[in-house]
Amino acid sequence: MAQRGIFITFEGVEGAGKTTQAERLADALGPNVVRTREPGGTPISERIRDLFFASEGITPMTELLLIAAARAQHVDELIHPALKANKIVICDRFIDASVAYQGYRGGIDLELIQQLNHTATSGLMPDLTFVLDLPPEIGIQRQQDSATDRNRLDNEPLESHRKVREGYLFAARSDPHRVKVIDATQSPDAVHADLLAEYQRFILSR
Amino acid sequence: MAQRGIFITFEGVEGAGKTTQAERLADALGPNVVRTREPGGTPISERIRDLFFASEGITPMTELLLIAAARAQHVDELIHPALKANKIVICDRFIDASVAYQGYRGGIDLELIQQLNHTATSGLMPDLTFVLDLPPEIGIQRQQDSATDRNRLDNEPLESHRKVREGYLFAARSDPHRVKVIDATQSPDAVHADLLAEYQRFILSR
Repeated sequence: MAQRGIFITFEGVEGAGKTTQAERLADALGPNVVRTREPGGTPISERIRDLFFASEGITPMTELLLIAAARAQHVDELIHPALKANKIVICDRFIDASVAYQGYRGGIDLELIQQLNHTATSGLMPDLTFVLDLPPEIGIQRQQDSATDRNRLDNEPLESHRKVREGYLFAARSDPHRVKVIDATQSPDAVHADLLAEYQRFILSR
Repeated sequence: MAQRGIFITFEGVEGAGKTTQAERLADALGPNVVRTREPGGTPISERIRDLFFASEGITPMTELLLIAAARAQHVDELIHPALKANKIVICDRFIDASVAYQGYRGGIDLELIQQLNHTATSGLMPDLTFVLDLPPEIGIQRQQDSATDRNRLDNEPLESHRKVREGYLFAARSDPHRVKVIDATQSPDAVHADLLAEYQRFILSR
C-alpha cells in the first residue's frame, strides 16, 4: 500500500489562536512538517489572498469561487505533492472555512459549497481538523489587543462572527470523526495539550 | 411583463477581431449600449484579470475557478443591473470561453464547466453570441502584426489555439439558436455587415 503523509487543518473564528497553535503543533511534531495556510500557500494563491482581503464589495459567491481557485492551485502545487512525499501538512483554514464563512456567514447553499470544495480539492480531505472554538466577542477582543494581521473580515458585525462559529460547530457535528472541537478559551498551554492529546488519539486509531 | 435589455457576447480565438467588431457594433446600436469584457468589467474582476494573465504555472482548474469568480462579480455588479435597466450589454467573451479555453484547451470536464457557469451567472444566458471564426494561424499572425494587448495565452502552441477554435464550434453546434458563427477571414467591413444582419434577424425573431 502506498504510504502517504498526514493532513491536519486548523479552523476557528478570528482571534481563536489558530496561527500560534498551528506553529506550536508543528514544532512539537518535528522536521517532517510543512506549514501552510489558506487562502494562500503558493505564489498564485497568495496573490489571490491579497486580492480577496483588499476587495470591498465582493459578493459571497465571488468570495467562494476565489477561495476555491486559490485552493485548487494550493492542493495541486503544494499539499498533494507534500502528502505524496509522506510529509505532515498543517494548514490554517481549509474546506470547513468555506462552509463557515461563505455558507453560514454568506448565505450560500451548503451543498453547492461541498460540490465546489470537492472540485477544488479533487476530493482530498484533511485527516484531522481542529476547530479552535470560543465566543467571537473574546476572539475580537484578542485581535484588537494584538492589532496585527487585521483584515476586512475583522470589522464585520458581531452577528457575522457568530454565524461563522455556528458554521464551524455544524461542520464538527457533520463529521465528528475528522473534526475535533477544542476549547480555545483555555490558556495557550492547555489548548496545546488538548491538541497533542487529540493528535495521539488519531495516530493510535489509524 | 417586465422589459429587459439585450445581452450580446463576442467569442473567438486570439486575433479574430472581437474587440474591433464589438466596438463597431456598439457604435452602430447607439447610446443605449454598455460595452464590457471578461475576465473583467468591474474593479474586482479586472484585478482578477490582471492576476489571471500574469500568473505562469496556473492550473486549468484554477483558471476555471478564477474566471468564474470574476464572472460572478461581473454579472452581479454590472451585467444584471444593466439588463434590468433595459440596456444592450455587449461583452467580449463570456460562458462559451470557459468551454473553449478551460474545456477544450484545458481538458476539464464540460459538464463541470457548465455547472460552474450556471453557478457564476445565476443562470443568466446571453441572448445572442457571435463566434468570430478563423484558422488560428491567421489569428496569431494578426496578433503578431499588431503587437498590442498580447498575453501569456498568445504564446501557447498552435495546437492549443486549434482546440480553442474547436471548442467554440462545439458551443455553436450545441446551441445554434443563440450562437452564430461568423467568418472572420473576411474584411472587417464584411464581418460588420454579417453581424448587423444577424442582429436584425435576432430582433425580428424575438
